[in-house]
Amino acid sequence: MSESVLLSRRDLDFLLYKWLDVVALTARERFAEHGRETFDAVLDLAEQVATEHFYPHLRATDTHEPTFDGERVHLIPQVGAALEVLAKTGLTAAAFDTDLGGAQLPEVVAGACFAWFQAANISAFAYPFLSMGNANLLVQHGTPEQIDRYVRPELAGRFFGTMCLSEPQAGSSLSDITTRAEPRADGTYRLFGNKMWISGGEHELSENIVHLVLARIPGGPAGVKGISLFIVPKFLVNDDGSLGERNDVTLAGLNHKMGYRGTTNTLLNFGEGRHLPGGEPGAIGFLVGEAHKGLSYMFTMMNSARVHVGAGAMALGYTGYLKSLKYAKERPQGRPPAGKDPRAPQVPIIEHSDVRRMLLAQKSYVEGALALVLYAGRLLDEERTAPTPAERERAHLLLDTLTPIVKSWPSQWCLEANDLAIQVHGGYGYTREYDVELHFRDNRLNPIHEGTHGIQAMDLLGRKVAIHGGAGLAALGEVMRATVAAATAAGGELAALGGQLAATVDRIIEVTAVLHGAGDPDVTLANATVYLEAVGHAVVAWLWLEQALAAAGGQGAFYEGKRAATRYFYRFELPKTGPALDLLASLDRTTLDTDPAWL
Amino acid sequence: MSESVLLSRRDLDFLLYKWLDVVALTARERFAEHGRETFDAVLDLAEQVATEHFYPHLRATDTHEPTFDGERVHLIPQVGAALEVLAKTGLTAAAFDTDLGGAQLPEVVAGACFAWFQAANISAFAYPFLSMGNANLLVQHGTPEQIDRYVRPELAGRFFGTMCLSEPQAGSSLSDITTRAEPRADGTYRLFGNKMWISGGEHELSENIVHLVLARIPGGPAGVKGISLFIVPKFLVNDDGSLGERNDVTLAGLNHKMGYRGTTNTLLNFGEGRHLPGGEPGAIGFLVGEAHKGLSYMFTMMNSARVHVGAGAMALGYTGYLKSLKYAKERPQGRPPAGKDPRAPQVPIIEHSDVRRMLLAQKSYVEGALALVLYAGRLLDEERTAPTPAERERAHLLLDTLTPIVKSWPSQWCLEANDLAIQVHGGYGYTREYDVELHFRDNRLNPIHEGTHGIQAMDLLGRKVAIHGGAGLAALGEVMRATVAAATAAGGELAALGGQLAATVDRIIEVTAVLHGAGDPDVTLANATVYLEAVGHAVVAWLWLEQALAAAGGQGAFYEGKRAATRYFYRFELPKTGPALDLLASLDRTTLDTDPAWL
Repeated sequence: MSESVLLSRRDLDFLLYKWLDVVALTARERFAEHGRETFDAVLDLAEQVATEHFYPHLRATDTHEPTFDGERVHLIPQVGAALEVLAKTGLTAAAFDTDLGGAQLPEVVAGACFAWFQAANISAFAYPFLSMGNANLLVQHGTPEQIDRYVRPELAGRFFGTMCLSEPQAGSSLSDITTRAEPRADGTYRLFGNKMWISGGEHELSENIVHLVLARIPGGPAGVKGISLFIVPKFLVNDDGSLGERNDVTLAGLNHKMGYRGTTNTLLNFGEGRHLPGGEPGAIGFLVGEAHKGLSYMFTMMNSARVHVGAGAMALGYTGYLKSLKYAKERPQGRPPAGKDPRAPQVPIIEHSDVRRMLLAQKSYVEGALALVLYAGRLLDEERTAPTPAERERAHLLLDTLTPIVKSWPSQWCLEANDLAIQVHGGYGYTREYDVELHFRDNRLNPIHEGTHGIQAMDLLGRKVAIHGGAGLAALGEVMRATVAAATAAGGELAALGGQLAATVDRIIEVTAVLHGAGDPDVTLANATVYLEAVGHAVVAWLWLEQALAAAGGQGAFYEGKRAATRYFYRFELPKTGPALDLLASLDRTTLDTDPAWL
Repeated sequence: MSESVLLSRRDLDFLLYKWLDVVALTARERFAEHGRETFDAVLDLAEQVATEHFYPHLRATDTHEPTFDGERVHLIPQVGAALEVLAKTGLTAAAFDTDLGGAQLPEVVAGACFAWFQAANISAFAYPFLSMGNANLLVQHGTPEQIDRYVRPELAGRFFGTMCLSEPQAGSSLSDITTRAEPRADGTYRLFGNKMWISGGEHELSENIVHLVLARIPGGPAGVKGISLFIVPKFLVNDDGSLGERNDVTLAGLNHKMGYRGTTNTLLNFGEGRHLPGGEPGAIGFLVGEAHKGLSYMFTMMNSARVHVGAGAMALGYTGYLKSLKYAKERPQGRPPAGKDPRAPQVPIIEHSDVRRMLLAQKSYVEGALALVLYAGRLLDEERTAPTPAERERAHLLLDTLTPIVKSWPSQWCLEANDLAIQVHGGYGYTREYDVELHFRDNRLNPIHEGTHGIQAMDLLGRKVAIHGGAGLAALGEVMRATVAAATAAGGELAALGGQLAATVDRIIEVTAVLHGAGDPDVTLANATVYLEAVGHAVVAWLWLEQALAAAGGQGAFYEGKRAATRYFYRFELPKTGPALDLLASLDRTTLDTDPAWL
């Protein structure tokens, strides 16, 4: 059993091997080379590298945020050193095909590895992590030549990648982007425009930066249907793989953030003329796939980025929980209500029931979130490798439906966990001597980037549970009811919890029908966020029941902990969905009918 | 109507004059010199000085936090300059007696004035604010000579004051403090010990610092019954008021915090021998009141400090709300669900119902919190100046009962408001270019200092609603039911809201009886925080109904806004108390029965 304050290997083992049975995946051709031994080995490696090379400079990464002197970006050297070590392990290519230099690990196992780095130093790990998403998109939508030229160096850790969607005037509203891509006779494009909030947009951590940029080809349709996707490398790449001219991508400035400070966050100018590749204006870009289909390609990346945001939020919550747990076991303060003799020694604060409440709440949030993100990883593997098309389609449907929850639930509740981790530390938790205030600041980004909380809510209620005649919600209801059936069969406390969950599932399906029957999209979506949060809580309650079932019969503190956290979630958390679903069922118009002038 | 982004003068006027009828106070002798004109004038002055002298360096106060070079503490000069301007206005003495140099303003009006400074730059304002509490304690418990020597210079802005309670090993558990005070033949004491988390513990903003220090006189009882209170000035004060020798109070270090950075937060050593006043070891201290009664005196200060924490949390929430409201009216982004033509211009984000939800939520939290802290100020005035002893006693009882809620509710929900203010700003809100991330960081202190959230919960459930045969809760129930009666009489929507509130009040009284009937203090208090939060929500719902009644018949956007926020609170917030009260009624033992080893 690990004593790490980053993540619990014991918990990972339980979820991966006992609950999700990832070893069963090795029966499939793609994973045939793997077994429990190789999974254990990469998990060990990830923990070790994260602990020894990323965690030691967590605080320094925050204190000494990147600076820009007008020419170059400066980061503390520890970040580059850590990324070099990581590149040597080959971990970032772990889930990619072996013929691209990857290891064909299941996504669910790779995700568990990455969580160690997210817990250790999320903002330093963001560079290779974003690059994986970038590489993944190109593997799916790029040409073989593009894959050779850009993906292979990315997977080798020599190039890093970005995704350039937002612009100063277009964040959540991608249909309003104005960056333009002018075609040239040689089949390349010249890009002109500004991109905002680009993480990893400039640095000298890698030989090159592969920007994936959304832009409009003049004459195309308005809105999202006229957006194309381009590769715009910082340095052009010659046919032999060597670097050529500097492209016209210029750093206009760094954003200075509350947290996540190790990751440069940039405003980039494309084609402003500071560099003129080939002596001509415009940043040289290479179309990915077909013109005007860029947004759908980018969604490949964005959907996986959303799962990763959830995973990052989980990792920050998880490490905060473990740190506050350690603190609570070590810090003496006060005496229990029933024994207030001031001559008695002080007790460790974990003896106070309110501190245990804060720890149980954290445990229920972070272990619930871990189950959620691992489940999403498992679905990704099913989507790709399940034996039958029907199984693959079903996995795709479930993952697609769950994605807004996988993104938003950990972003909300693991931030709440970090809040509680500070509170457990008392005044010390508010100082920069302890990690927990930093996790709280870092985690505050997660409800914003890759689609805000409100955008996820619109996606879930307006699209995911609505399309295909409600097939997504039906599929979700089906897997949840299967768990209820197992709990009912198990009897006792599990059956009672199952009953509570079944009632919530029924109510959600009922309320969803009421919402979609409203006959006015403004009314349907008026309280979409309330819906997102209620469904999210139900989903995590379901995953806690799954965990309790997997723990059934298990003896000892670990299993008792799983049962206690399940109990906590069903008594303190799941009932919160009651008033929320009642509000939704009433088609409440308060937010809709409030005139902006009244605010 | 003010266009300020700090507070709404319109709202203050409504609450002070229309709802709380503070002008009626001028019928009382203490306030006979005052009238609406003088109240308006000090409110104008406070807004002006806060806006012109405190707000401009809000960001600089955070970016350039105080530093300690081993000898001296350095702050940015703007803080000292602002405090000098403030001292000249006499505002910090506003509520004190005229014969001490004060203006005998009602506390409720003075509190409204101070809120402007808290909204403008809370960490710079903390120095005089803490000094007011210090002076107030000495006025009540010090000798006339101590008042002359320390309070008069404090009220003149020449001396600042601190409260020195916590020690590194004793934060929430004051019974464990170990600083000792050895009596000397001349009636003075020599203090030895370390004090932690002392705000304003060292700086050069004032001529002198008056530390109020809790310490034990050797031979006294153990626990809180053996704690005495001492004045320990940084510089001894001669009989003629001039400064004498440096006392042996040494800055051991500054705490580096997530927010609230303008306020030095210190570890102080008393009697470590670096300075030897009179050539003898120990910091010279002067007993306040009687020996061993120090904690009860300190509670005079602490209770008012707790109300002030609530006010500070409110002010941070309020300004965050106004800033996000301004942003939401100005920032174009996206289109409503029912009109997604990409060729249509983007709408200001306030047109999106989810953004309005975030604004309404903030409004309901921050205006509810403002009503709460002003009501507490009004009770303080009633406690001191109501015509009959019975009225004064009743005001005291109500204020005493409400204090943990006045402290904790704004600390929780105005932090939540700041979280929403960031979210309204999107990615911009996460940058240090906007104020809202700073308010969020500053506000995170409030659930910790002056008694943590959990300590307030124990105070409310274990003491405030329990003592005197439940008189505190009975008194609170009575005022709440009077409001319900008025709402019932008003009919329509108000009557319906009244019915909802009445049911909640009944349920709280019922559940409180169940909790106190548990027969085991550990069980009674196991979920005290859940109780605090439920009662807090009911209290604020009550104050929203009070506001809605005061707004009844009012025409125009301001009054419509009050009605919309009331509706929001009753539909989205008050129902959250349902599951919480059910949990409490079940005497749930989850937190109690969880073995620390399971976590």
